[in-house]
Amino acid sequence: MHANSPCPVARSADLLGDRWALLVIRDAFDGITRFSDFQRSLGAARNILSDRLRRLADAGILQLQPASDGSAYQEYVLTAAGLELFPLLVALRQWGERHCFEAGEPHSQLIESGTRRPVPYMQPHGRNGEPLQATHTHVRKLKDAGGGA
Amino acid sequence: MHANSPCPVARSADLLGDRWALLVIRDAFDGITRFSDFQRSLGAARNILSDRLRRLADAGILQLQPASDGSAYQEYVLTAAGLELFPLLVALRQWGERHCFEAGEPHSQLIESGTRRPVPYMQPHGRNGEPLQATHTHVRKLKDAGGGA
Repeated sequence: MHANSPCPVARSADLLGDRWALLVIRDAFDGITRFSDFQRSLGAARNILSDRLRRLADAGILQLQPASDGSAYQEYVLTAAGLELFPLLVALRQWGERHCFEAGEPHSQLIESGTRRPVPYMQPHGRNGEPLQATHTHVRKLKDAGGGA
Repeated sequence: MHANSPCPVARSADLLGDRWALLVIRDAFDGITRFSDFQRSLGAARNILSDRLRRLADAGILQLQPASDGSAYQEYVLTAAGLELFPLLVALRQWGERHCFEAGEPHSQLIESGTRRPVPYMQPHGRNGEPLQATHTHVRKLKDAGGGA
């Protein structure tokens, strides 16, 4: 829909602005590879799940490969481009932790394996290394862009 | 749908896993406040746009306030919780820049106003200050959680 937009957010949102797609990607980061395991984790209808897996494969986010155990199953694994969605997943998670849970309400946690402690809060930084707020940024649009940022 | 999930990604994705919601938030960061301006920017149907504005207001991401020019218009502005979506928007943008454009294809840019240079690449960091890859993290689930990360 926004495949020709000059705005990278619009193009990303076309692929990723879908709750099932985001949850498939979450599960892929979590090590899930098989259709039946995605289905069990997500409780999604077969047709929804196969549509999202196909779209993510078409977008170069997931790739199909033969099962690692030599069986006839196919496995869905993140491509290099898919692995670069890690910051997006961290941003979704950290915002959710702050704004979608009551104080003290338990939730799953993303743990830094080396220290066994939660992954620190992620935010953009400026060239001077300091955290950067949205108010200290602006979008430079293309001069001839027709609508959209 | 996932309002009771112990996974912060699932709760965030329920609110934010929608391309129109993401584009409304993008435009709000870009300074758009009025219904007609969102409509012009997004080209969304009125009913879709008003649904998304209402959902984002219900979720505490946008708030309605009287127009800053004293007119009878209402303005939609990001709340404090909405402003904390900046890392999510940066992640969407930076992934889109890398994976949704051909080499050399022009796109809008997020500029650090102080330096007039593009905002540096954002990624999670570990407690030692080094960039953190997904493979060096894991999700600690709740012991009694029924399904989902």
